[in-house]
Amino acid sequence: MGEYRALTEQQAVEYARNVPGLFEKDAELVSREIGDGNLNLVFHIIDKKHGKSTIFKQALPHLRVIGESWPLTIDRSRIEAEALKLQDSICPGMVPKVYFNDVDMSLSMVEDLSYLKIMRFELMKMRKFPKFPEQIGKFLARTLFYTSDYHLDPIVKKELVKKFINPELSKITEDLVLTDPYYNAGTNDINPEIMGFMRDVWWKKDALRLEVTKLKEAFMQKAQSLLHGDLHTGSIFIDENEMRVFDTEFSFYGPAGFDIGAVIANLILNYASWAGRDDATAEQTADYRAYLLETVAGVYNAFESYFSEAWDSDARPEFKDVKGYKEYVMREIFEDAMGYAGCKTNRRIIGFAHVADIQTIKDEKRRAAAQMLALSIGEALIMNRAKLKGIDDLITLIKDFT
Amino acid sequence: MGEYRALTEQQAVEYARNVPGLFEKDAELVSREIGDGNLNLVFHIIDKKHGKSTIFKQALPHLRVIGESWPLTIDRSRIEAEALKLQDSICPGMVPKVYFNDVDMSLSMVEDLSYLKIMRFELMKMRKFPKFPEQIGKFLARTLFYTSDYHLDPIVKKELVKKFINPELSKITEDLVLTDPYYNAGTNDINPEIMGFMRDVWWKKDALRLEVTKLKEAFMQKAQSLLHGDLHTGSIFIDENEMRVFDTEFSFYGPAGFDIGAVIANLILNYASWAGRDDATAEQTADYRAYLLETVAGVYNAFESYFSEAWDSDARPEFKDVKGYKEYVMREIFEDAMGYAGCKTNRRIIGFAHVADIQTIKDEKRRAAAQMLALSIGEALIMNRAKLKGIDDLITLIKDFT
Repeated sequence: MGEYRALTEQQAVEYARNVPGLFEKDAELVSREIGDGNLNLVFHIIDKKHGKSTIFKQALPHLRVIGESWPLTIDRSRIEAEALKLQDSICPGMVPKVYFNDVDMSLSMVEDLSYLKIMRFELMKMRKFPKFPEQIGKFLARTLFYTSDYHLDPIVKKELVKKFINPELSKITEDLVLTDPYYNAGTNDINPEIMGFMRDVWWKKDALRLEVTKLKEAFMQKAQSLLHGDLHTGSIFIDENEMRVFDTEFSFYGPAGFDIGAVIANLILNYASWAGRDDATAEQTADYRAYLLETVAGVYNAFESYFSEAWDSDARPEFKDVKGYKEYVMREIFEDAMGYAGCKTNRRIIGFAHVADIQTIKDEKRRAAAQMLALSIGEALIMNRAKLKGIDDLITLIKDFT
Repeated sequence: MGEYRALTEQQAVEYARNVPGLFEKDAELVSREIGDGNLNLVFHIIDKKHGKSTIFKQALPHLRVIGESWPLTIDRSRIEAEALKLQDSICPGMVPKVYFNDVDMSLSMVEDLSYLKIMRFELMKMRKFPKFPEQIGKFLARTLFYTSDYHLDPIVKKELVKKFINPELSKITEDLVLTDPYYNAGTNDINPEIMGFMRDVWWKKDALRLEVTKLKEAFMQKAQSLLHGDLHTGSIFIDENEMRVFDTEFSFYGPAGFDIGAVIANLILNYASWAGRDDATAEQTADYRAYLLETVAGVYNAFESYFSEAWDSDARPEFKDVKGYKEYVMREIFEDAMGYAGCKTNRRIIGFAHVADIQTIKDEKRRAAAQMLALSIGEALIMNRAKLKGIDDLITLIKDFT
């Protein structure tokens, strides 16, 4: 405990050894650095003698990016641990257990989930996860409903809003996702093959920028539900049976549709990637894309079904007793989800942070083909979010582009 | 300083005497209780020797209402003083100066504005204030714009959101304004003459309750601007030249249209009152109502003009550079203002707290006439807020009812 200092690997191991109840007294601890060291220190610490293990994560006060240093509050460690604990209470077994956290040192010890795989890399191998829609749909519905005004005492909810105000990490999303891709910003990272399209067409789309700015404003102002805030397929551990959501440091109160949109966007990005990849047959691609679209529909349908069920059981009377209100809320969430799915798709093509699904396509022309498909879908989602009647319309829209 | 204790009048005077720089050493202080003692202690303290004075206000930990005690956080004193200071920095001379505040004791000493009159009682005497639209329009535009994301650094703005989270006082509005009037709640206070209409008609208006609940949700979730939060004509000091807004303890981040709606609602309530009063000639009533409608239009037009001016000078580029965005924001604020004006009108007829404009009409039948007119306008405002093209449509709507 005490004043913050970034720990060395050896210090981290010693720190872990002294956390009461975490390891046995005679533990033989070995550690392996598994983070990229840009944002957090992450060590996988194993007791070889008793087979216990933990993930040790400490927030660093700077985000190190290409040649510069971006100061970033270490308060995100508190937010991450608090969000995980709250989500675990709402959806037991769907996030890593937090064994211990030290707010002053901005570190936590969480459940070791290294027996699971990162979903993004599995999708890139055309793996299928039939239980995923049900799992993530339940996670989304329950975390978004049970942290909202529809369920919580309004005084409790406002204390949670206060606790999770997360200005610096929210600003990353506001800038990199909801602003920069829509003009020629220095933070963008653009395939030279699509640079002409950016200059001549994309950055002249005033109507698109207007709609994205409306979504940005809602992201900044609409304290509807406690969000994960960064729910892409790289924040999901998975196997055939189990799914866990992690990396909740972007958590804050925002529009419920944002997390749903993030999941859908990352499925769309994988869908688009096959337009540029040359390591699958046409049949394999068609089959996997059909699976991805089924998954998109499945995720949304599961979300709706669990959300509706939670509403019927546990909504506060002042909302539940109002005829048509559940339908109004679910429609608003749908439109937001579609809009943010579009924003999250586009930013991974134009913006600062790309996804491996598409970025691993070495050939710039082939990569551009995948990117242009993603942008077409992303734009259509944003511009048509009020017109789509339901998730099936989204599937039709995506199919119409391919 | 030190732990909270409610002060007696004599202790308050002694406390004031010891605040550095407030009174002279040889001040001859006299005090007069001017609050109603239900929510706050309020003393008017005057130094008879040097002619200086202050308003001493201390928050009480309970709201005493008809036979019961409602615990209410004394943190509202901090919020009130902070909001006044922020508003004074944005609109100098439009709120009382805060000379001193003591967060632990939940008290503050503010500028004595007793040379001005409470606007509500002046309207009840058919007084006219030609400068008011310009004054309040400027106050609304500047306080709502300069505390919003359109102007502030997003990190600064989120710290302000956190500072002004005001759960208990917000809940009073959520319940008494945005929920209870739309069903047969125990908190309502209803003229027996309109009770039949309530039971047979009003509480069966599902579409109205649905729209009000949408406005309630936005009130709870949309952290757009720092609001006054209770901006009725009893929170405004006025004379021919000067206007000051006070009583900011409900201040929090909410939808900008709420404060504008509150001002308009209180002008409408006075307008409606003349349908029940018998102390003015038809000509006087027609003349004063014309003045009130001019004032409503004038307030909104001044708000729009100052808001637009502030946007053009001081909006952040990520909003200002987006074609059509100012128009989108101003339209959203207009619809919210109309909706909340309707809610604030209705609650003063059906809900817990009434207004003197109408409540002073002794005859129940005459009072009912004023009340029914107010409810008709209130409902129309809520139901037609998306259809009204601008403030002139509101004036037409009101005239159509009379």
